[in-house]
Amino acid sequence: MAGSETTRRSKAAVLTPDGSGVQIWTREVPPPARACILIKVLRAGVCGTDAHLAKGDQPFPDPVVLGHEGLGQIIELGEGVATDHAGHPIAVGDIVYWNPIRPCNACYDCTISEDFTACTNGTFWSPADRAEVWASYTELATLLPNNSFYRIDPNVPLDAFIALGCALPTILQALDHLGGIPSGSTVLVQGAGPVGLAAIMMAKLANARDIICIEGVDSRLQRAQEFGATLLVDFRKPELSSRQARQSFINSSIGPRGVGVAIECSGNAAAFDEGISLLGRSGKYLLVGTWAGNSTVPFCPFDVVQKALTVVGSTFASPKHYYRAARLVETNHEVFPLAQCVTHKYTLDETIEALRAVGAGEVVKAVVIP
Amino acid sequence: MAGSETTRRSKAAVLTPDGSGVQIWTREVPPPARACILIKVLRAGVCGTDAHLAKGDQPFPDPVVLGHEGLGQIIELGEGVATDHAGHPIAVGDIVYWNPIRPCNACYDCTISEDFTACTNGTFWSPADRAEVWASYTELATLLPNNSFYRIDPNVPLDAFIALGCALPTILQALDHLGGIPSGSTVLVQGAGPVGLAAIMMAKLANARDIICIEGVDSRLQRAQEFGATLLVDFRKPELSSRQARQSFINSSIGPRGVGVAIECSGNAAAFDEGISLLGRSGKYLLVGTWAGNSTVPFCPFDVVQKALTVVGSTFASPKHYYRAARLVETNHEVFPLAQCVTHKYTLDETIEALRAVGAGEVVKAVVIP
Amino acid sequence: MAGSETTRRSKAAVLTPDGSGVQIWTREVPPPARACILIKVLRAGVCGTDAHLAKGDQPFPDPVVLGHEGLGQIIELGEGVATDHAGHPIAVGDIVYWNPIRPCNACYDCTISEDFTACTNGTFWSPADRAEVWASYTELATLLPNNSFYRIDPNVPLDAFIALGCALPTILQALDHLGGIPSGSTVLVQGAGPVGLAAIMMAKLANARDIICIEGVDSRLQRAQEFGATLLVDFRKPELSSRQARQSFINSSIGPRGVGVAIECSGNAAAFDEGISLLGRSGKYLLVGTWAGNSTVPFCPFDVVQKALTVVGSTFASPKHYYRAARLVETNHEVFPLAQCVTHKYTLDETIEALRAVGAGEVVKAVVIP
Amino acid sequence: MAGSETTRRSKAAVLTPDGSGVQIWTREVPPPARACILIKVLRAGVCGTDAHLAKGDQPFPDPVVLGHEGLGQIIELGEGVATDHAGHPIAVGDIVYWNPIRPCNACYDCTISEDFTACTNGTFWSPADRAEVWASYTELATLLPNNSFYRIDPNVPLDAFIALGCALPTILQALDHLGGIPSGSTVLVQGAGPVGLAAIMMAKLANARDIICIEGVDSRLQRAQEFGATLLVDFRKPELSSRQARQSFINSSIGPRGVGVAIECSGNAAAFDEGISLLGRSGKYLLVGTWAGNSTVPFCPFDVVQKALTVVGSTFASPKHYYRAARLVETNHEVFPLAQCVTHKYTLDETIEALRAVGAGEVVKAVVIP
Repeated sequence: MAGSETTRRSKAAVLTPDGSGVQIWTREVPPPARACILIKVLRAGVCGTDAHLAKGDQPFPDPVVLGHEGLGQIIELGEGVATDHAGHPIAVGDIVYWNPIRPCNACYDCTISEDFTACTNGTFWSPADRAEVWASYTELATLLPNNSFYRIDPNVPLDAFIALGCALPTILQALDHLGGIPSGSTVLVQGAGPVGLAAIMMAKLANARDIICIEGVDSRLQRAQEFGATLLVDFRKPELSSRQARQSFINSSIGPRGVGVAIECSGNAAAFDEGISLLGRSGKYLLVGTWAGNSTVPFCPFDVVQKALTVVGSTFASPKHYYRAARLVETNHEVFPLAQCVTHKYTLDETIEALRAVGAGEVVKAVVIP
Repeated sequence: MAGSETTRRSKAAVLTPDGSGVQIWTREVPPPARACILIKVLRAGVCGTDAHLAKGDQPFPDPVVLGHEGLGQIIELGEGVATDHAGHPIAVGDIVYWNPIRPCNACYDCTISEDFTACTNGTFWSPADRAEVWASYTELATLLPNNSFYRIDPNVPLDAFIALGCALPTILQALDHLGGIPSGSTVLVQGAGPVGLAAIMMAKLANARDIICIEGVDSRLQRAQEFGATLLVDFRKPELSSRQARQSFINSSIGPRGVGVAIECSGNAAAFDEGISLLGRSGKYLLVGTWAGNSTVPFCPFDVVQKALTVVGSTFASPKHYYRAARLVETNHEVFPLAQCVTHKYTLDETIEALRAVGAGEVVKAVVIP
Repeated sequence: MAGSETTRRSKAAVLTPDGSGVQIWTREVPPPARACILIKVLRAGVCGTDAHLAKGDQPFPDPVVLGHEGLGQIIELGEGVATDHAGHPIAVGDIVYWNPIRPCNACYDCTISEDFTACTNGTFWSPADRAEVWASYTELATLLPNNSFYRIDPNVPLDAFIALGCALPTILQALDHLGGIPSGSTVLVQGAGPVGLAAIMMAKLANARDIICIEGVDSRLQRAQEFGATLLVDFRKPELSSRQARQSFINSSIGPRGVGVAIECSGNAAAFDEGISLLGRSGKYLLVGTWAGNSTVPFCPFDVVQKALTVVGSTFASPKHYYRAARLVETNHEVFPLAQCVTHKYTLDETIEALRAVGAGEVVKAVVIP
Repeated sequence: MAGSETTRRSKAAVLTPDGSGVQIWTREVPPPARACILIKVLRAGVCGTDAHLAKGDQPFPDPVVLGHEGLGQIIELGEGVATDHAGHPIAVGDIVYWNPIRPCNACYDCTISEDFTACTNGTFWSPADRAEVWASYTELATLLPNNSFYRIDPNVPLDAFIALGCALPTILQALDHLGGIPSGSTVLVQGAGPVGLAAIMMAKLANARDIICIEGVDSRLQRAQEFGATLLVDFRKPELSSRQARQSFINSSIGPRGVGVAIECSGNAAAFDEGISLLGRSGKYLLVGTWAGNSTVPFCPFDVVQKALTVVGSTFASPKHYYRAARLVETNHEVFPLAQCVTHKYTLDETIEALRAVGAGEVVKAVVIP
C-alpha cells in the first residue's frame, strides 16, 4: 500500500573501511518516499568486484552495504509510482530487477555524452549510514528515483536472472560500443566466468560461426560448452600451456583469416597480447575484464595499424542494458542453462564465506539469499 | 589518340633488391591496351615509405619503379576508355590523380570485406621488368584497369594536389574507420609531417574546438599552425621535454575532460603511451603512423577499459578516398596552404638526393618532377 | 544568493484554452527550490509553433505561459546547484540557455530508448497556474531539475544565440538521426526560415559542395545566401513556378547524380514529392518541417525502392543538442550572420503582435524581450 | 581441366523482345577464357522478376537468356582461376553459387559509392547472342571475371540454397542499409513469398520478440509460421479484411509501442500506408517489394516526422550478400525448412509453365533444373 507510515527493520551485510571485515547490521527502514519503492530482496548476486572490495583492493571512505546485483519483490510503493521504468504497471508483489547506478541526469556525462555509467554524481555504493539502501545484501532495499528498475516475468526462475548478474548488462553495453558481433563471425572469448559466459551467450545469439573459449577451470569450461563455445582451449593442458601452442591450435581450427571479434573477460592483463596476436585483419577487440588494475604488458602499436584493428574498452552498463538483459533472460532461459550457473547459495550471515569462495574462483555464480 | 601503335621511351627511377641503390632505367613503353591509359607524369610525391624502401627497411624481391603518389597528363587512351572512374568524360590533355593500389576485385577482401587496401593480389609496387608501370618516378606511366584514376581541375596548382600525397587519402580512410571527428572535439595530432598535416586539416574542417599538435621540427610546427593547430607543443623546448610536462601543459589548456580524438602520425611507438594518457573518457585514438615497425612499448590494458577508449588502426586508402582527397584539395586549396607544403623539388636524376632529404626529415614535402 | 526567502513578482504572457487570446498575468515567484535556479529572461524567441498555438491549431487543456526558446541571467541558485548541466561552475549573473523539454528520466523513452524528446511525462508546456514556470515569455523563469541548462559566453551577442532558437537544436538532432551530411554532398534545403537557415549552416559547416535553397520570401532568400546557399530557387519567379521547371533548373546546375541530402524545412506537405524527385541514387531525405499537419500527398513507394532512398523524420531536440547548439553559436557567430537574423523585437506587452507577425511570415526571426 | 580447347553445346531458355515468348536455343559454348569458369547449372530459381519480364512488364532490347538465380558444378576452370571469390581453393566438381550482377569496378558507383548494385556498366541480363552466358536457365553457364561466385558445402541440399534465390541476398543488403534488426524487436513482414520468408528468417535470427506476417496465400502462411512468424494475419478472413480490423488485431497483440521494424515484401503499393500506420515511435520501415511499379498511394509526410520514422529502400544485393547468404543457408538449413520451400520443379523445356505458375502466385518457390 502506498503512503504507509510503517517503519521496518532489516539486516544488511556492511563492509567498513577499517578492514574489520563484513558485519551484519540491523537497520531501521522508513517507508518509501515519493517516487521510491521498497522491496524485499530475493536474490543478491556475488560479483568479483564485491570480493575485491572485501579484500581491500579498492579503498572506499565510509561503511557501505554490499551488493550491486539484485532481484526483489515490491512490498510498498512510494507516492506517484505506478509503473516500472519501462512503463509497465506495477503493484505490490511484483518482482523487479534494478540498476545500482544512479545517474544524476544533470551533468555532462548524463545530458551531453548520455554515458550514464560515467556519471560521478550518483553514488554507486550504498552508504550504510543512510536510511535508504539500494544495495542488495540486505533484507529490504529502497530504490530511489534514479535507480532504474524493471518488472520481470515471475514464471522464469529467479536464478536465471541473477546468474549473469551485472555481467550480462555489462556485455550488452560493451557490444553497443563495439557495434555488435556480425553474423558468421569467428569469436574468441578469454575467460568463462559470468562475464565470459554472457559474451558466449551473445556470440551464440549473434549466429557466430566459431566461438573459441580459453579458460582453465573445469566448471567454467563445461558451462562455456553448454552456452555454445565451439572450441575449448584449456590452458592447463601441457600441450596448450604456451601461447604459441594455443595460437597454433586455434589457427588450425579457424583458418587463415584469424579471429574477427575477441572479448577479454579474464581480467588478466597478459591475455591482451594473446588476443592481439589471434585477431585477423580488421579484427575487433573488446576489453571488459575490469580488474586488470595497473598491470602493464609489452605492446606493439604497429600490430594495430598493420591489421587495422579496433580495440574498445567498456565498463558497466546503462539502465537500458538492464532492461534488455531481463528480456534476454526471459526469452532464452530455456536455451541457455542460466539457472544452472548458480552453483552456490548463501544466507546473509554467510556473506563472508560467499565472498571468499568467489575470490578463490571456486564457483560459477554464487548468490546471497537474504 | 586511342588505338595508336606508337611505342615510346621513358626514363624511370628503379630500385633493385641487391642494395645497389636507385638506378635510372630507360624503358620501352607500349601504347595503352584496352581499358588502360598512358600518362606523362607531372608530379611524383616522395613518401617516407619510399625512403624506407630505399634504405632497405623492407625487403622486396624484384626491381621496382619507385613512387606511389602521382599526377599526370593523359597522352593516350586505350580502347574503351571514355571516362575517369567517377564517370567524368576524359580526353588527351586532361590531368589525373591515381590510386597505386590495384584491387583484384575477386577475393575475400575485395568482394566480401570490401577492404580494398587489404587485397594482396593486386601488386602495389610496380615491377620494373613489366612493360607497363603504374609507379610515379617515371616519365610515362600506364594506368591499368584497376588503377582507379580521377580527373582533376587544371586550374588548381599541381603542387596543392601532390602536397599531401598518399597522406590525405590515408587519413580519410582512417577517419572512416574511426567514425569521423565530431564537431567541437578536442583533437590531438602527434607529428606534423604530411600525415599529421592532413589530420590537422580534417580536424579543422570538422570544426574541432582545440587542435593540439606535438612536433619537434620548425617548418612542420609552422605549417601545423597555418593549417589550424590551436596549441603547438614543441617537445624540443626544455620545459616540454618530459611527457609529464607536456601533459600538464596540454591539460591546463584543454580542461578536465581531456582529449576526445587523438591521431598518431609520428610513426614513433613511444607516442602511443602519451596518447593514451591524454585521452579522456570515451576518447578515440587513431593510429596511422605506419612505420613504428616492431617497437614494443609498455601498455596497461585497464586504461582502455576504465576510460572506455576506442583505439583504431588503419593503413592506406581505397579508391574512394583518392577521389574525395582530390575534391577536398579543389575546394580548400586557398584555405589551407597546401601548395606551400612542397618545399623541395627534384628531377628524376636527383631521386637519390630526394630520398635522402625525406629520410632525414629535412623537408615538409619533396616531389620529383620527371 | 542561494537559499533566500525572497518572493518576487513577474509578468508573463499567458495563453488560455478558451480562445480569449494572450493575456499578461502578474505572478508571484517563489525562491528557487533545491536543484532549481531562478533566472531573469533576456531573450525569448518566437517560434512558429507559438503562433500555431495562439491561432488555436493545437488544443491544450489549461492556461500556459508561452515560449520555449530562451536565454536568461541567473539571479538566484537553489540549494545544491553549483554547475550547469555540462559541469561548468555557475554563479549569479551568468547567462544560460535552456531546454524546455523536461524528461522524466524514469520511463521507456528516457531509460531504454534514450529518446528524451519522446517522453510524455515531462510537460513541455509550462502551466500558468504553477508557481514555477520554465517558459520564456516571462520576466522571471524557474528552471526545474530536469530543465537542462548551459552557461553561455557573455561576450557573444544574445541575439546570435536566440536567432535560431529551437531550430538549431532541432536540426542537430535530425542530423544525428540521419547520420550527418557527408563532406562534398549536394544538399537541398526546402524553406529558409530559422529551421532552413540552421540546415544551411550545418550543410556549410559539413563542407557540402552545393547547397540549393528553394524559398519564396526575399529576406529569407537573402539570409540563405549569406549562410552559404550556392543556388537560390525563388519559386515566385514565373520561370521557376512549376515543379518541372525547378527540377530542370536544379539538375542543370548539379549534374546527373542528383541531390544527396534533402532537408524539408518548409512545413509544406507538397514539398515532399518535389524532394523525392530531386534525390539521386542512395539519397537521404530529412523531414523536420513539423507543421505539415494532416495534409496528404500522392506518393509512389517504388521511388524509394528503386533509388534506394532513406527518409528520416525527427522532432525537436535533446539536452545535448542544446549544448552543441550553444557551442556552435559561440564559435561561428562571426562566420554566419546569426545576430542579424533577429529582424523584429517586441516587449511582453506586444506579444500578440509578435505572434501575428511570425504567423504571417513577415519576419526572419522575432524575439520578445520581457 | 584448365586450358582445354573443347567447345560444348548447351540448351538455354531465351526470351526475345518481340513478344514471341520463351524459346529453347541450342548454343555453342567455348572453353572458359582466362579468369572465367564454366559450370553445369544444377538449379535455376524462378524469380517473380523473370515472370514479369516474360509478361512484357519491362522492355529489353535484345534476346536474353533468362535466370539470375543459380547453382552449378564447375566443369572447367579458365587460366588463372584457383580459388572462388572468398579465397577458397576450387576444383572441377565443386558446386558454386554466383552473383549475376557484374560490377565494372571502374565507375562512380563501384569505386566511390561502393554500391555495386547501382553500377549500370555491367549488364545484369545475359545477352543470348554472346558466346558466354552467365544466366541460369541454361545447361552450361560461363562465369566472367566480375561474376562473383562462392563455393558451397556439397552436403547441404541444393534446394536449400536455391529456395530463397536472390531474395535472401536482397534482404541482407536491405538490412545492411537499415542497420539490422535489434534484438527483442517487434517486426512486421508484409507478404511471405521468398523475400518475405527471408525477412522472417532474418528477424528470427535477430531474436525478434514478435514477428507479425500479413499474407493471403495458405502455403505461404504455413511457411511463415514454420520460419518463425509469431502472429499470422490472413487478410482473406472476413474479420481481418479491413485495414482498421488488422490494425486492432495486431495492436492488441503487440501492445502500445507499436511495430519497431516493418519490412514490405508484397510489392503492393497499398501496403505502404498500412505499414506506416502500424509503426511506433522511431520505427523503421524497409521497402524491398520491388515491383510496385508506378502505383501511387496517399501519404502524410507528417506521420514520418511526428513518429520520427526512418523509411529505407533497397534493391538487389552485392557480392558480399551472396557470400553471406550461402553461409547462412549452410548453418541454418536444418533450423528453417528451406529445402521444403521448393514446391515446384521444371525442366528447361517447361520454362513457360514455370513462369506462368510463378506469375500466378501458385508456388512458394519454383526451380528449373536444366
